[in-house]
Amino acid sequence: MTETTSREALTGSNGDPDGHIDTAELGELLLGKWADIRKLARELAADTRAHKVEGLTHTEQRERAFNQLKLLVDFKAVHRAFPKRLGGDEDHGGNVAGFEEMVTADPSVQIKAGVQWGLFGSAVMHLGSTEHQDKWLPGIMSLEVPGCFAMTETGHGSDVASIATTATYDEATDEFVINTPFRAAWKDYIGNAAIDGLAAVVFAQLITKGVSHGVHAFYVQLRDPVTHQFMPGVGGEDDGIKGGLNGIDNGRLHFDHVRVPRTNLLNRYGNVDENGEYTSSIASPGRRFFTMIGTLVQGRVSLDGAAVAASKVALQIAITYAAQRRQFNASSDIEEDVLLDYQRHQRRLLPLLATTYAASFAHEQLLQKFDGVFSGAHDTDEDREDLETLAAGFKSLSTWHALDTLQECREACGGAGFLVENRFTSLRADLDIYVTFEGDNTILLQLVAKRLLTDYAKEFKNVDFGVMARYAFNQAADLAINKTGLRQVAQFVADTGSVQRSAMALRDEETQRALLSERVQGMVADVGGALQEAAKLPRSKGAEIFNQHQHELVEAARAHAELLQWEAFTEGLKSIEDPKTKEVLTWLRDLFGLGLIEKHLSWYLMNGRISMQRGRTVGDYINRLLAKIRPHAVDLVDAFGYTQEHLRAPIASGAEQIRQEEAADYFRAQRASGSAPIDEKILLLKQKQAAKNKK
Amino acid sequence: MTETTSREALTGSNGDPDGHIDTAELGELLLGKWADIRKLARELAADTRAHKVEGLTHTEQRERAFNQLKLLVDFKAVHRAFPKRLGGDEDHGGNVAGFEEMVTADPSVQIKAGVQWGLFGSAVMHLGSTEHQDKWLPGIMSLEVPGCFAMTETGHGSDVASIATTATYDEATDEFVINTPFRAAWKDYIGNAAIDGLAAVVFAQLITKGVSHGVHAFYVQLRDPVTHQFMPGVGGEDDGIKGGLNGIDNGRLHFDHVRVPRTNLLNRYGNVDENGEYTSSIASPGRRFFTMIGTLVQGRVSLDGAAVAASKVALQIAITYAAQRRQFNASSDIEEDVLLDYQRHQRRLLPLLATTYAASFAHEQLLQKFDGVFSGAHDTDEDREDLETLAAGFKSLSTWHALDTLQECREACGGAGFLVENRFTSLRADLDIYVTFEGDNTILLQLVAKRLLTDYAKEFKNVDFGVMARYAFNQAADLAINKTGLRQVAQFVADTGSVQRSAMALRDEETQRALLSERVQGMVADVGGALQEAAKLPRSKGAEIFNQHQHELVEAARAHAELLQWEAFTEGLKSIEDPKTKEVLTWLRDLFGLGLIEKHLSWYLMNGRISMQRGRTVGDYINRLLAKIRPHAVDLVDAFGYTQEHLRAPIASGAEQIRQEEAADYFRAQRASGSAPIDEKILLLKQKQAAKNKK
Repeated sequence: MTETTSREALTGSNGDPDGHIDTAELGELLLGKWADIRKLARELAADTRAHKVEGLTHTEQRERAFNQLKLLVDFKAVHRAFPKRLGGDEDHGGNVAGFEEMVTADPSVQIKAGVQWGLFGSAVMHLGSTEHQDKWLPGIMSLEVPGCFAMTETGHGSDVASIATTATYDEATDEFVINTPFRAAWKDYIGNAAIDGLAAVVFAQLITKGVSHGVHAFYVQLRDPVTHQFMPGVGGEDDGIKGGLNGIDNGRLHFDHVRVPRTNLLNRYGNVDENGEYTSSIASPGRRFFTMIGTLVQGRVSLDGAAVAASKVALQIAITYAAQRRQFNASSDIEEDVLLDYQRHQRRLLPLLATTYAASFAHEQLLQKFDGVFSGAHDTDEDREDLETLAAGFKSLSTWHALDTLQECREACGGAGFLVENRFTSLRADLDIYVTFEGDNTILLQLVAKRLLTDYAKEFKNVDFGVMARYAFNQAADLAINKTGLRQVAQFVADTGSVQRSAMALRDEETQRALLSERVQGMVADVGGALQEAAKLPRSKGAEIFNQHQHELVEAARAHAELLQWEAFTEGLKSIEDPKTKEVLTWLRDLFGLGLIEKHLSWYLMNGRISMQRGRTVGDYINRLLAKIRPHAVDLVDAFGYTQEHLRAPIASGAEQIRQEEAADYFRAQRASGSAPIDEKILLLKQKQAAKNKK
Repeated sequence: MTETTSREALTGSNGDPDGHIDTAELGELLLGKWADIRKLARELAADTRAHKVEGLTHTEQRERAFNQLKLLVDFKAVHRAFPKRLGGDEDHGGNVAGFEEMVTADPSVQIKAGVQWGLFGSAVMHLGSTEHQDKWLPGIMSLEVPGCFAMTETGHGSDVASIATTATYDEATDEFVINTPFRAAWKDYIGNAAIDGLAAVVFAQLITKGVSHGVHAFYVQLRDPVTHQFMPGVGGEDDGIKGGLNGIDNGRLHFDHVRVPRTNLLNRYGNVDENGEYTSSIASPGRRFFTMIGTLVQGRVSLDGAAVAASKVALQIAITYAAQRRQFNASSDIEEDVLLDYQRHQRRLLPLLATTYAASFAHEQLLQKFDGVFSGAHDTDEDREDLETLAAGFKSLSTWHALDTLQECREACGGAGFLVENRFTSLRADLDIYVTFEGDNTILLQLVAKRLLTDYAKEFKNVDFGVMARYAFNQAADLAINKTGLRQVAQFVADTGSVQRSAMALRDEETQRALLSERVQGMVADVGGALQEAAKLPRSKGAEIFNQHQHELVEAARAHAELLQWEAFTEGLKSIEDPKTKEVLTWLRDLFGLGLIEKHLSWYLMNGRISMQRGRTVGDYINRLLAKIRPHAVDLVDAFGYTQEHLRAPIASGAEQIRQEEAADYFRAQRASGSAPIDEKILLLKQKQAAKNKK
């Protein structure tokens, strides 16, 4: 076996002669606008007290997670979004950035903190009055009052507008009566509901004077803070053990004519006076609903960021291991390749790395957009609509991507990947729910699709998509025509001209942009054309036709979000100064773009956007990119900046390298001493040779 | 809301007018040759004592699983393969069928039983002499001696030939000295090693008279049966918590010059006499190795079956729920569709159902092939090679499919799917390792690829594929040219003529066969052509070129295995007598075939096998099939025959239907009584109307 230095092992035999990327510069770029807060949060996430302990029962996990929230309070890690007068920073982007990083410590901590401060606290802040904030936020911020965000019902997951819990105003007592009419209307999957929650923001249909004004939020005491028993009329049960995130005590809640003061209505967008008169600053009930619900976008933004962080951790572990692990016998006389030198292994991991970079750049754009809206700096209707669309698209893609990445990394590390000590399985179990909570990904993509269709033709603006996607579609229906949707896509194409016309190379940026854009445009036009008639038909018939195109709609939305990820990656390239770094990142961006084109190649072929001849080169071109990127793979994951305290995976600790060297030393010494046994195969060969020579 | 009968709800609004499939006939067909044993095993699997208990610590899970094995002994559920003279039935197929069904009770039980009887016991039976069997099998069968199958090492997963543990014959004492030379040679991921194992079959390089004769198996006492302490020289550690299957105590083992009697060598294929002379009935060391390793195929066969069973359970749960769950508000005046009426939901679940049927029929063929070989009824070299290839291909596809299915079902059931009580997350965690143990799927597909290449051209027969796939490729290298591989594929094409020549419909069976076959043939020819030169080059250069085609090779193997699944499904159709059942199953087979063609559509287009025009119809055709199959979806999962005792998922218990009806009744009564509040939206509409009328 040839001796190899550690560096050669890391970069492989085809080590790039032109040197290495600048991981420091790249690392800072990836940290983004809130780099300082991320670094602080990573320090906290490196603290063993914040780490998930594996093998606890769900009861023990819940206790631990609750105590970890206290740690977050002590570190002032979770109050950045709250009003300055109450001790916050009114820093919305920084707040989310800090939350996201906690996923590397323990996803249960990230999500339980999200329930307490991102949902329960945010609802009081965004839906309540100043008085509400002053009264309730201090206890929420200090964790003196752990609380719930009681929106989802057993019978209605994504369809929030249809929840059946009622809050009926009783003029006689100046109270709202919160009531659960039947089993399907129980609040379900509610974090903090099974054990910890003392109070809740409960979403219910507000009824006064015989009129239902739609979903509103009410602050409701759930349990007695001393006895911890349910208040009269409140009941519930434990959701029990889940596939992951067992640090959070999800549960069910129901209300049997529970009375709360009228002033417990979080009345920023709708109020009832003591005479039972309802007033709202937003005349349209639909728009009012979506304005209230719109404050929830923060959850999606932070899930997007956490999914990206988890993908980074997974890849940093798996690629480190793949650059050290030699699959074949160290006694062999042939130099053995490390796993990462195998094409298939590159094919498994490097496209995921490229997608993670794309998702990382995309998330940074989303977070800045979010901060602009929530800080009020850029808070037009269009900004809010863009934010909704970006969050829906990116959250869907990145959370699915995180699961794919964790699974592929787990498999690429074989049996070692299955051991919980190496993180993949634990993170995957915890992140599983990310793809369906805070908006089911499939529903969110239909929200994106609605946006694309309304850009395509105005008649879709007010169409009732009926069926499953009603929530998603309606969410956008009252809002203005957007600016970053399809029309921008169309503009790209106009700028770049038809792909067919110019002799272009697939690695060309404009070519990739044109191809990705034309696919979105083409798909939307196809579906839009088919649906234009349907939009004019009676609702039930129209819904049937929409249903026949539901799959295409979702795929068009996915294509759109992929394009926006690609744009974000491309935008990110502009900021890189070091030429080698820029070159390698451009290859990685190309790998992402070409990967998308390969995935959807049949569409490009059938729609005449790529010729047969060129189509056949896509796979080879990707393989060549893999070989070019491979020497930089370890640097590309090191740039994520996570340390051993974040990775906490024995297989990424260097132990594998040490084992390899020990084995190689053993065989080297054995050969040198002449004590190695002879292989029977070689003996047989020699005997054959001797027999031949005799003849 | 229109009242619907339960039947209408189940079959959807497009209920097939031509009646229903015969689930009884179909159920029997699916149970296959060993239907009686499967039914017995399902009875046992329905026993609460055999069920996984969620939320236990891994220590508690291990204890429970060990006790569950005793239950299997009591029920005589695990001895069917063993010799009749020792109380077995010598029924290999029936034995595996019975094992597989246990996955519905608890995958840990299935796998821990597999370790004890399928690996440890089987190794003694297949690699040992009659004396060995008589001496050790009774204790193994009764569980008096729990044991390990100590093959894999930390440093060598799939590459068994390169393990570094040695067994050196010492003539002076007539003993073998088992030794672990360095850390990477520790046995790892070994079931029963951490706690329960009293003995082990240890795989080690057999060395006598200075010659290494390759990997052989040795029976080694690990722990004192009374004190349960490691024997002198034996050591180890616990692998700890895993991503799943925590009923099994995986661990590491190492041996410091541990001495065992010479007669502890399991010597069926290689023996050492008291003078240290080595003899074997198989002259070629390579072939000898693969003959010994070949006895392991049973594990792959049973994983294939268990993966199919788990997929069936998942789909029976998710489709039952999707046929009852209404996503929209029961107070709506429009009839609400159940989830399964939405195209996207059909697209998510029904292709998985089709693939599960294909995998089920394929597994039955594999099991019969396995039984033929192991019973000796059809035990030629060709039979064994076919068995290896089928097991490698089907196990890879079905275990990945099970993970995909469990995940899609979990997501399709939203938050309810994430609750461990609904089974998906628990089964998924337990089955995760199925894709990399008993042969890493990626390596197994390379074994299949090697087979395809050797069929393509003889020069590949003895080529050293170097690199990662050496194990897999070498495994087939010494065997004869096969009969069910590529040549048979070529034959299909010759039989059916070129796809291009005839005007054919995609739903035509021969068309599907020709398309799927031509793809395998085309891919193999492409890679084969590129590699023929490489095979003649010096090994290192050749290996480099092979590496550049590794991805294509794996994809070709996958295509081959998919074709064989399709063939098995098609073969299965022939046995169905009821015309409606045959019609629906044919649609399902078409959905499977067309799904494969859609997935690989770019290949078909670029290779001129499908025209652009026809390509554009594939998606629509699939959508039409979905609509036709949908009314039969519940029957198709009911035919799997699992009862509530196997499903054990509240969402599939009918509770959802009851909740829906309760909610509908409530709103109906409210409307009837006139006590329903008026919706603000409707009020606004009326006010507008009134204002208009005034004018």
